[in-house]
Amino acid sequence: MNALEKYNHTQEQLRNYRYAANIISFDEATVCPKKDKRRSNEVSNYFSKLELDITSSDEYFYNLEKILKTLNVDEITKKKIEKEYKELEKIRRIPKSLLFSEYDLISETTVSWEEARESLDYSIFEANLSKLVNMEKERLSYLENKYKGYNVLLDEMEEDFTMEDYDKFFDLLEKELKPILNKILSLPKKYNEKIKDISFDIDKQKKLTKMICDLMGYTNEVGVVAETIHPFTNGINANDVRTTTRYEEKLLFSNLYSVMHEVGHATYELQVDPIYSETSLGGGASCALHESQSRFFENVIGRSKEFVTYLYPILKDLFKEELKDYTFDDIYYYINDVSNQFIRTEADELSYPFHIIIRYKIEKMLFDGTLEVKDINNKFNELFKEYFGVEPKNKKEGCFQDIHWSSGFGYFPTYALGSAIASQLLYYMKRDLDVDKLAKEGNLDPIRLWLKEHVHKYGASIKNKEVIKKATGEEFNPKYYIDYLKDKFEKIYNL
Amino acid sequence: MNALEKYNHTQEQLRNYRYAANIISFDEATVCPKKDKRRSNEVSNYFSKLELDITSSDEYFYNLEKILKTLNVDEITKKKIEKEYKELEKIRRIPKSLLFSEYDLISETTVSWEEARESLDYSIFEANLSKLVNMEKERLSYLENKYKGYNVLLDEMEEDFTMEDYDKFFDLLEKELKPILNKILSLPKKYNEKIKDISFDIDKQKKLTKMICDLMGYTNEVGVVAETIHPFTNGINANDVRTTTRYEEKLLFSNLYSVMHEVGHATYELQVDPIYSETSLGGGASCALHESQSRFFENVIGRSKEFVTYLYPILKDLFKEELKDYTFDDIYYYINDVSNQFIRTEADELSYPFHIIIRYKIEKMLFDGTLEVKDINNKFNELFKEYFGVEPKNKKEGCFQDIHWSSGFGYFPTYALGSAIASQLLYYMKRDLDVDKLAKEGNLDPIRLWLKEHVHKYGASIKNKEVIKKATGEEFNPKYYIDYLKDKFEKIYNL
Repeated sequence: MNALEKYNHTQEQLRNYRYAANIISFDEATVCPKKDKRRSNEVSNYFSKLELDITSSDEYFYNLEKILKTLNVDEITKKKIEKEYKELEKIRRIPKSLLFSEYDLISETTVSWEEARESLDYSIFEANLSKLVNMEKERLSYLENKYKGYNVLLDEMEEDFTMEDYDKFFDLLEKELKPILNKILSLPKKYNEKIKDISFDIDKQKKLTKMICDLMGYTNEVGVVAETIHPFTNGINANDVRTTTRYEEKLLFSNLYSVMHEVGHATYELQVDPIYSETSLGGGASCALHESQSRFFENVIGRSKEFVTYLYPILKDLFKEELKDYTFDDIYYYINDVSNQFIRTEADELSYPFHIIIRYKIEKMLFDGTLEVKDINNKFNELFKEYFGVEPKNKKEGCFQDIHWSSGFGYFPTYALGSAIASQLLYYMKRDLDVDKLAKEGNLDPIRLWLKEHVHKYGASIKNKEVIKKATGEEFNPKYYIDYLKDKFEKIYNL
Repeated sequence: MNALEKYNHTQEQLRNYRYAANIISFDEATVCPKKDKRRSNEVSNYFSKLELDITSSDEYFYNLEKILKTLNVDEITKKKIEKEYKELEKIRRIPKSLLFSEYDLISETTVSWEEARESLDYSIFEANLSKLVNMEKERLSYLENKYKGYNVLLDEMEEDFTMEDYDKFFDLLEKELKPILNKILSLPKKYNEKIKDISFDIDKQKKLTKMICDLMGYTNEVGVVAETIHPFTNGINANDVRTTTRYEEKLLFSNLYSVMHEVGHATYELQVDPIYSETSLGGGASCALHESQSRFFENVIGRSKEFVTYLYPILKDLFKEELKDYTFDDIYYYINDVSNQFIRTEADELSYPFHIIIRYKIEKMLFDGTLEVKDINNKFNELFKEYFGVEPKNKKEGCFQDIHWSSGFGYFPTYALGSAIASQLLYYMKRDLDVDKLAKEGNLDPIRLWLKEHVHKYGASIKNKEVIKKATGEEFNPKYYIDYLKDKFEKIYNL
């Protein structure tokens, strides 16, 4: 076998290991019987480690080098290999034993987080989390080069976005939006609050899910909406991107917007040029871009007055009895209710970035050594009070409500960035399309196609910043986000 | 590493490959989006081939030999290795290229069977099936030793049961039961036939499924009932045995008995001594024994007058509206209706063995060269007419209604054998337990524990014939089956 044949042969192996790890993880989260979950975890980990074992080997690495240096390969193959090579150059600086230990620790930390949520005893989780912070610091020490410390992590999650960038971005949000947030939090509710207590038939909720999926062009040819407590999206390949949601009688709107969010993620993955499927150039270009797509569908479209106008008669018809005493305003104001509730994933668009800022500040302090894991809870509550005027009652609805820290840090800030990118995209999309009219008609196809053409099709073949530039003609610019939020919530609350 | 360490290391690898192949297959059948099914198939095949590649290697084989000859290992490890060794001795006689080609052909044949069911054009499937018969003949040629031809296949499926045994068994069934079958087929129906047209709410059917699973001690700790068109059971390990069923509004009873059937299989797997889990001694002792357990719960218990007595008020309560015009007799006689309908899986207990005999006769002729694949349809219809007086309208409800032949031959006769073993077990169980009373009370726990103690716990650590002997004190004896069927149906039809 020559170097390219060798590469292709190993790629097949790696693709299959990855496929297995993906499916087993999805299975674990959805249908796997409880007693088999540990084993399931073990097996998906096994395949992830096999993958790492192969790709981090000298043999694999020098073969990539050989191809790049000596062979004439087509442009796309070259790009794929270059991207892999660059990533492996980084990974190979870290001792393999450390990487393997971290796989195991992450798996343990995740399990202990789940267990803590049941017992409300976070001691084991916190012990694991402390170890994870230390292990991450050690890992980062091998990677310091262009960036140092927490910036290495931020760059890993969102290339070339650093503390400097986020500080600037978040300071601007604080300056421009916090006064509005504070003002709105002191106003009375604009909807009949009994809407929170309605029980919505689960079967009808499933019909609504189906309807929303159809509207978004997400079918069982290429997708599925399974059920989990924490909804997520899992992109297997160009023909298979799975989502999950959660059904509870009282949580119709939570389900509705969770579906739009996850199917937003799925739409991105499914519209990537299939030529990149199951390679280093597949999937989204970055975390923030991925989040921009989910939040675009969930919020920018889903919670817009126009789309709710489209949805209202459908909801009234489907939930005739349940919604008979509620008006359009009740629904529209309820789903855009600015509140100081504790749960990030339930947050309205205006308070959302502040949930992120709290987490970002804590992460920064964990990595500059000014905060220890045992003090996260106090710091979180202090910050929450500062922004929202209230304090969470416990860690489950406070500092440890999210699963994310079980597997690492640096992810949260990309969420706020994603929301902001969504607004920037909207601004430019409106130059080409009458988005308001389309949303009012429930005609999402042109919107989906615009995103395919300007964002999705590239997959990870170009960098995050390049995608933003190509789609909007300018760099990331938070102005659109601030304008969008101000405009929307000033109107809703007649400020 | 010494030989045993090497063995254990490879075992871990094999267990993980098998776990992956199993989960991916289950996923493919249940939630996998349509467009990814081919890829899913490809990946599970990949892991099955990897497994075969390792176990059929000289290195692995001679290492087993080394352990058996030179090391002192505990009794169970020895048994596991001996069983593997024996199986590999066989497999190693077959050229690996043939085995691999057969994996691919089976996969193709299965897909073409599924496609033919949609188009009703069986030409591609039949071409594949012809190839498969030839490939099987070639494979068997390497294995002839104690047995020749079709007997090698029968022995593979059910050790030491040969054409001689089945011929004797089936001749006896024809002699003893065919006259009764013929007589009953000429009698009028004993129930209100409108029961076939009732639509049963799917949600309530799901409640019934849950109730039956609870009754059978099958919980989401260790199991799940997913949905597929063709129900099956997939035993992953001691903590995870999955089943599937199918919901259709008109098919309440079909779903009910399918659940009891599959959970019967699952009960077997779950009650095997966990020490054998994920090894060569795990799972059931044989195909026929497995089928004896599923059909025990489905028919011997599930369709008994006593269990239906228990179930009747539950059904009447759950389906108040749907069943308001139907009596106990309507239900009991309907679910035991002896009929000449075409579908094997829907067959009543009395006609069931004749569905099997037809398939057995066709398989025998395929392998002794007196029948070609292209003539299966005519032969099937001819035989069906002989036994049931009618002819299937097409291949979909006739000769190719089952998926089984897509992956090989020799399996069907074990179904009839399993049904017969179930009756033999019932006879001896009744010496220890008041089975009728327990069924009437819906108290299935003592029955399940009896089966654990006398059949299940052994797993595959002892042979099929040994299990029968241990459980009943005698060899396989078809007398109990004939007595059981005669007694039951003579009573029902007042013969």
